[in-house]
Amino acid sequence: MNQQNTGDIDEQTAALNERHRVRMERKKAIIDAKIASADKQIGIIIVNTGNGKGKSSSGFGMVIRAMGHGMKVGVVQFIKGAMQTGEELFLRRFPEEVSFHSMGEGYTWETQNRERDIEKALQAWEQAKRFLADPEIGLVVFDELNIALKYRYLDVETVINDLLARPAMQHVVITGRGAPPELIAIADTVTEMEVVKHAFKAGIGAQAGTEW
Amino acid sequence: MNQQNTGDIDEQTAALNERHRVRMERKKAIIDAKIASADKQIGIIIVNTGNGKGKSSSGFGMVIRAMGHGMKVGVVQFIKGAMQTGEELFLRRFPEEVSFHSMGEGYTWETQNRERDIEKALQAWEQAKRFLADPEIGLVVFDELNIALKYRYLDVETVINDLLARPAMQHVVITGRGAPPELIAIADTVTEMEVVKHAFKAGIGAQAGTEW
Repeated sequence: MNQQNTGDIDEQTAALNERHRVRMERKKAIIDAKIASADKQIGIIIVNTGNGKGKSSSGFGMVIRAMGHGMKVGVVQFIKGAMQTGEELFLRRFPEEVSFHSMGEGYTWETQNRERDIEKALQAWEQAKRFLADPEIGLVVFDELNIALKYRYLDVETVINDLLARPAMQHVVITGRGAPPELIAIADTVTEMEVVKHAFKAGIGAQAGTEW
Repeated sequence: MNQQNTGDIDEQTAALNERHRVRMERKKAIIDAKIASADKQIGIIIVNTGNGKGKSSSGFGMVIRAMGHGMKVGVVQFIKGAMQTGEELFLRRFPEEVSFHSMGEGYTWETQNRERDIEKALQAWEQAKRFLADPEIGLVVFDELNIALKYRYLDVETVINDLLARPAMQHVVITGRGAPPELIAIADTVTEMEVVKHAFKAGIGAQAGTEW
């Protein structure tokens, strides 16, 4: 490569870097303005739904995010519960920081008993309400609550009334497929986890550390 | 309500419960068969992408899931890093279990310096490669790696070759918007987090415990 070519490449790189700088400067101005206007601090309701992965694990990621900031956390697992998950095994190490309740007896197709499922769901919601009445708890996670609502084990209107009556600064994360439209309507942040690809379909089983 | 009506309702409830039982029995048979055929146990690559919430938090939920099963974890945060997040504050409590590396100096639009970003990304990838060479580490999380690939701070082919050369049982979670198609092609599980609603748009600012 001769002197002329090296010079061209240097110039090209310099131009690329300058374009990047200008673009990012513009982006920073837009984002800074957005941040300045979004200054409300208030407890929010987050719903993770859809058929893809990451609904529950995102809820548990938020648990440690909150714990990192010194917040107390309450967790109620609806529907799941027959098998101890990694997150449960881990979070039970911190009884002072996380109050963990796992109710139900496995996924609903394991029990095949609707009346027992309803009874378990109602018990779980009683615990949920205790968290929703406690301003010391900064974050509550209701894992797989959407499933209990979808099967009408719990009444969506009752659940919404209890959610809206919680302490002003308390955050709530609700997970599970098929979030009802009434819940989406009152939530602040809703994410649909969509499957692009799933290892299970390729014959890879549920594994400790990734699936449970 | 007379005796006859009560009897009708009891019968209706019994019929509903029985239909539920039959439906769940069928569902259990289908799921059991799927589980039996999906018996491969192998390290997988999980990609969380899309514009919605939950990409990073899901990765951190998987960190504690893995820790609950006694696995060692390595984390590299690309791009983010100027502000200490709750997950970082929390996970640094467990230096024996989690090796946490936070590189970069804030989002790319904060620095506006492409060359420095590239240098930081290359340093971060060197750390990533050390995790990918260590069979003692059961799970590695490359948080916001997709952003570094999108801006071409890192070469996607190099990254893929290093990922594919990792220990057979090691799981990898990669997060960030705009996952490149080459990465999606080699991943086992890919989820697109889609925004249905975002609290930020309603003027609610980024808050400790939910956003960072």
